Amino acid sequence: MNEYSSWIVETEGFDAGEVAKNGSKFMIGNGAVGVRGTLDEFSREQLVACTLSGLYDKVGDLWREPVNAPNPFFLRITCDGAPVSVLDSACTVLRHTQSVDMRGAVHARDTVFQTSAGIVLRVQSERWLSLDDTSLGASRIRITPDRPCKLTVELGIDGDTWDLNGPHLTHFQAHEEDEIDTLCALTHENAIPVVVAQAVQRDPHSPGVFSFNAENSIVRRFDIEAMAGHTCSFTKFAAFSFGQNARQDAVAACRRALAIGYDTMLGASRAIWDRRWANSDVQIDGDAVAQLGMRHSIYNLLIVAPQTDRASIPARGLSGQVYKGGIFWDTEIFMLPFFDHTQPALSGALVRYRIRTLDGARRKAAEYGCRGAFYAWESQDTGDDACTHFNVTDVFTQRPMRTYFRDKQIHVSADVALAIWRHYHMTGDAGVLLDGGAEVILECARFFISYAWYKPEKDRYEILDVVGPDEYHERVNNNAFTNVMVRATLRIALDAINALGEIDASFQAKLIKRLDYEDDLVRLRDMIDKLHMPAPDKVTGIIPQFDGYLKLEDIGVDELKKRILKQHEYWGGGHGLATTTQVIKQADVVLMLHLFGDEYADEVKRANWEYYESRCEHGSSLSACAHALVAAATGGGERAYDYFLRTATIDLTGESKQFLGAHYIGGTHPAANGGAWMVAVQGFAGLRIGREHIILNPSLPKKWSKLVFRFQWRCQWFSVCITPGQAIITADSANTAPVAFCVAGKCRALSPGEKLS
Amino acid sequence: MNEYSSWIVETEGFDAGEVAKNGSKFMIGNGAVGVRGTLDEFSREQLVACTLSGLYDKVGDLWREPVNAPNPFFLRITCDGAPVSVLDSACTVLRHTQSVDMRGAVHARDTVFQTSAGIVLRVQSERWLSLDDTSLGASRIRITPDRPCKLTVELGIDGDTWDLNGPHLTHFQAHEEDEIDTLCALTHENAIPVVVAQAVQRDPHSPGVFSFNAENSIVRRFDIEAMAGHTCSFTKFAAFSFGQNARQDAVAACRRALAIGYDTMLGASRAIWDRRWANSDVQIDGDAVAQLGMRHSIYNLLIVAPQTDRASIPARGLSGQVYKGGIFWDTEIFMLPFFDHTQPALSGALVRYRIRTLDGARRKAAEYGCRGAFYAWESQDTGDDACTHFNVTDVFTQRPMRTYFRDKQIHVSADVALAIWRHYHMTGDAGVLLDGGAEVILECARFFISYAWYKPEKDRYEILDVVGPDEYHERVNNNAFTNVMVRATLRIALDAINALGEIDASFQAKLIKRLDYEDDLVRLRDMIDKLHMPAPDKVTGIIPQFDGYLKLEDIGVDELKKRILKQHEYWGGGHGLATTTQVIKQADVVLMLHLFGDEYADEVKRANWEYYESRCEHGSSLSACAHALVAAATGGGERAYDYFLRTATIDLTGESKQFLGAHYIGGTHPAANGGAWMVAVQGFAGLRIGREHIILNPSLPKKWSKLVFRFQWRCQWFSVCITPGQAIITADSANTAPVAFCVAGKCRALSPGEKLS
Repeated sequence: MNEYSSWIVETEGFDAGEVAKNGSKFMIGNGAVGVRGTLDEFSREQLVACTLSGLYDKVGDLWREPVNAPNPFFLRITCDGAPVSVLDSACTVLRHTQSVDMRGAVHARDTVFQTSAGIVLRVQSERWLSLDDTSLGASRIRITPDRPCKLTVELGIDGDTWDLNGPHLTHFQAHEEDEIDTLCALTHENAIPVVVAQAVQRDPHSPGVFSFNAENSIVRRFDIEAMAGHTCSFTKFAAFSFGQNARQDAVAACRRALAIGYDTMLGASRAIWDRRWANSDVQIDGDAVAQLGMRHSIYNLLIVAPQTDRASIPARGLSGQVYKGGIFWDTEIFMLPFFDHTQPALSGALVRYRIRTLDGARRKAAEYGCRGAFYAWESQDTGDDACTHFNVTDVFTQRPMRTYFRDKQIHVSADVALAIWRHYHMTGDAGVLLDGGAEVILECARFFISYAWYKPEKDRYEILDVVGPDEYHERVNNNAFTNVMVRATLRIALDAINALGEIDASFQAKLIKRLDYEDDLVRLRDMIDKLHMPAPDKVTGIIPQFDGYLKLEDIGVDELKKRILKQHEYWGGGHGLATTTQVIKQADVVLMLHLFGDEYADEVKRANWEYYESRCEHGSSLSACAHALVAAATGGGERAYDYFLRTATIDLTGESKQFLGAHYIGGTHPAANGGAWMVAVQGFAGLRIGREHIILNPSLPKKWSKLVFRFQWRCQWFSVCITPGQAIITADSANTAPVAFCVAGKCRALSPGEKLS
Repeated sequence: MNEYSSWIVETEGFDAGEVAKNGSKFMIGNGAVGVRGTLDEFSREQLVACTLSGLYDKVGDLWREPVNAPNPFFLRITCDGAPVSVLDSACTVLRHTQSVDMRGAVHARDTVFQTSAGIVLRVQSERWLSLDDTSLGASRIRITPDRPCKLTVELGIDGDTWDLNGPHLTHFQAHEEDEIDTLCALTHENAIPVVVAQAVQRDPHSPGVFSFNAENSIVRRFDIEAMAGHTCSFTKFAAFSFGQNARQDAVAACRRALAIGYDTMLGASRAIWDRRWANSDVQIDGDAVAQLGMRHSIYNLLIVAPQTDRASIPARGLSGQVYKGGIFWDTEIFMLPFFDHTQPALSGALVRYRIRTLDGARRKAAEYGCRGAFYAWESQDTGDDACTHFNVTDVFTQRPMRTYFRDKQIHVSADVALAIWRHYHMTGDAGVLLDGGAEVILECARFFISYAWYKPEKDRYEILDVVGPDEYHERVNNNAFTNVMVRATLRIALDAINALGEIDASFQAKLIKRLDYEDDLVRLRDMIDKLHMPAPDKVTGIIPQFDGYLKLEDIGVDELKKRILKQHEYWGGGHGLATTTQVIKQADVVLMLHLFGDEYADEVKRANWEYYESRCEHGSSLSACAHALVAAATGGGERAYDYFLRTATIDLTGESKQFLGAHYIGGTHPAANGGAWMVAVQGFAGLRIGREHIILNPSLPKKWSKLVFRFQWRCQWFSVCITPGQAIITADSANTAPVAFCVAGKCRALSPGEKLS
């Protein structure tokens, strides 16, 4: 594998069966818009989607979900009247490659067609979205026939894109103004204007014919007498905009693009990409598959990270509307570690999204009769919960199935508190606490105070009736993961109050007064002491996942599969196959053992890993990385490696669950992507940011000859290079303070520019 | 309707479609054995069952259920070689009646057949079980041909009877000794001997041919040259016995029967029946249907009441093995009021069954991590819970469905405590408290102390995660019925301790010490004050059935029925049709309003009756009577009457639910029968036994010209005769003390022999 191939994801030949998978694999994005990796001639049936970050809509009683904008990268070619398309059976594909260059998030296709009349035609396109000016994207098309022919080339904005619970756009209007075409529409729920604009240039310049193709599309058609071997080229600038003044904004963006031109605009975007990669890349030598998977994972995170607190990263990124475009705990637990370590500005935006949506979480807590903040299972623009009470469809009856994701997965408030506190710890940014972060933490703790029950005769608090990470067991009591997370939240609340006292004592006093938190502080301290913690069994070391878990039927995953009666039947819910057994969907206790690794002995980790791993379906993409992390932490290197590969290549191989009950759940998996980073850096390199010092405890997979990455702690940057038998940490010379490191038991402060071997 | 017809349940003509229903309608029993109302020639397919009270068996992994003994009332007749049977299509039924005389529980059939050869043959039989010597039964057969013919008459003990989860008997052995035939077998689980014996007499006496018909049966065959118009008669004595010495016991019983003879034995049984009816009968004039239903209800209770604490009354009486022959809360809440008021000796035995099985309830509490006594949802001989975790079979997948009847229907411990306390109050029998009743009450209260959680910020105890009477909503919090019942239990525990102090202070002190109850007394007092009681809404008066009930989808029962996809689909469980709606299976809040009628204003009762009645499926036979009672108490006379008729005629019309999921649930309905008595006496007559005095507040249905009944309070007996505008209460002259009565607001003590108008 050369340098190039570790940065390019590429496929050769066209396979109609891979269209959905490739749509996710070859995605591009800039945090504001995600464009699926579909070909230029694709439309709704091929799951074309330009998913807008932070814009949601609801049609009638259907699920509220992100809006897919009309697709400005639509291209339709005919050659002497015959369609030129991979979808046209009369048109032969002689050669075809599709790729994405992860260095700058540029999608490319290069296809050689032969029409039924025998004309051979090469079609090349590239497209990208600007990271510099996030409302903009651009594409370039090159068409080269092998003989003279009459080409029609239609470049358009196609409103007929993929929708799960749409169509979301209505009242389409098309305009042309100074050769900038705009397609304007309104969302259903709140009539928010959504505008996509295009400016098309033919090289050499010549005007096309502007036309409406259908009521929700707009195309610019060029009729060309093409010459043999000569290339017709087109450049397009596209702008996405929504909200007030959307049309003006889109037109202005196109004008900016036209003014600076394609190459300059691409250069500006690439420069930002270069800076991102410089800090975020993880280099793996000796293992091409791992390297490509690793980069693709990081890429998938970087293309979906918003630069604003108006949005966060949905569970399927910007790859469509699956899971309602909801922001899950995935972001806080599985993605933020990557951003905190390598892109603190982006992690700040992600954390502030939760601060901004605090009132939504307060509304949800109140809805359930509690105080404080109960963060949504599926959060959208306002923080209100998009998750329905009926989130799975039964395959036997086709009826919606009552599920308790929304009501009972209370750990999400702990995940948010933990993430805010970790961000503060990682960046030292007091602003995040002062600007609402401390308030969120206190409100999350308050929610748990208000949620918990006290068992007088056991003199302990219990957390009842919850769903832990393993969703196959709903409404359980004292889920170990949840209880530990709740205690962590309570401790963080105390820590945050103490930190505020140091940062700004009067702010601290005012906040406690404003939140009327005095009594809760008393309760909080009592609850920290008395909260029930499911403990490892003294003989076996096993921590029961929840009260009564070990009494459930103990059956293997494969044995359970034999009981399946119908494809895609849901294993959880009231009467799912797994519900009454010890088979779990995903890491639960194991994830806890990663998150709170310091608090459990290695034997306990090993015993529980063995126990739960053999009972785990890995029915969630969040599962593999947790297993890899705990395996790596306890010396299970090769087992860790297998799980690492699963999580790192998930969006390359497309090997993930595609249906939950009757619902499609395909797309990209940013949590698994973040998990891959965690396994490489926190697992194999053994990086851990403690309170006082940073620990590195490397244990590379056999294949790996080198692991190189960078990270920051409180604005001090470090480069790490690990080879078998050696680890070199280099402090950036621009650093401003020494930082204590411990490697292989030896501790030492590392000053700016210093190197530690 | 004449006097006769109000005591005889009768049907004319044979209808094969009614066989199952008639089996329940024409049952006979003596508390030790129940024999279904099947015809003499019937066998397994026609659901023949002689169900033994208190004997249970389990085969392999199947459900544990009562044992049906071999049927000693089996009869097979041929006439010139042709079968004489309602089941033989070649044999015409010219006339047929089947009846039961409720005065003495005598089953009779009278059928005129015509064989294919044209011979007309009348077959008459009667059978009954002795209430005087409960291991005995007897039958008499009369066969009269219209012309000379060759008859074979086989009288046998048929082991091929109805079983749900059998066959339960194995190792059959047949014996003959002094013309007494015994069929002995062993149960599967514990190899308990079960013996049925017969002694057959032909009149005039002549020996038959003894033979084994099959390996699990025994018959005595008589070959007869019959004469025209002459009647061949047979008398049979049958004995049922199980346990050690079962064979000797059965033979001895037959010998006793042979010694005293048919008529004397019947007379002794009838004498007891007469005494029972004298105190238990409810006479209704002006409404023949109500009168017959009322008597049939009382009859159904009297035939199944055991005279020993070894058993209690199962939910389907002794009509087979449905519901595993389990004793449910039905007995305590719906049947005991009848027995307490009219048959205190029988109610004493029923109450002592719960005392005897206390250790089973303790084991169940411990199984769920609690202290005290958690009585079984389906109690059998030991008090251990026969209810499985999978008590319904899903009609869509044929999979067993996880249900929470066993785990969460905790109110059964309250029902037991309430029943013991009521029995003590009704009889004044301190023995029941001293012999374990007080211990049961304290242990039930302790279970609730141990089960409850405290919510610090609301300063209240809550009862979480329960199933109330309405089983369609599982795992709910603060079910109003349950919470009120729990508080009642706690109060009863205090009352019982006080009562013990008065009865025997040293016993009281020893019991508290032995049970280590000092700390629990403190907790108990705290919990009485602070237990959360769902209160009526200030505007609407509605009491929410449980936390969040009023937020569920509000849909009518008929509307809901339109969503049914498959016959017998279960409406409850994880994803049942009713689970996510306000549709309930049966009276829940409404039942509470009856049981604690003094604590709620009439407007609250009316508002909740209206609200819940319109959302109630009445999918349980316990529902109609509760609705009738609350309607009667709040002046809803005619509505009460409709529900009264439903509950009073349930086993006459056979109009009840026959399937729960895929399980058959037919049989008799003693709880509904007890409910009918409650509606007549506590509803229409308005009888209420207060702490200080007895209240009568009559309000008869329009049709009724007279309502007459008797009841006792602390061994003082009273007759009540209510006519429109007048009520006469007569104290028995054998009474020993005056008792205070309040009728229409006027209160007065009634001395022995006195009459109050």
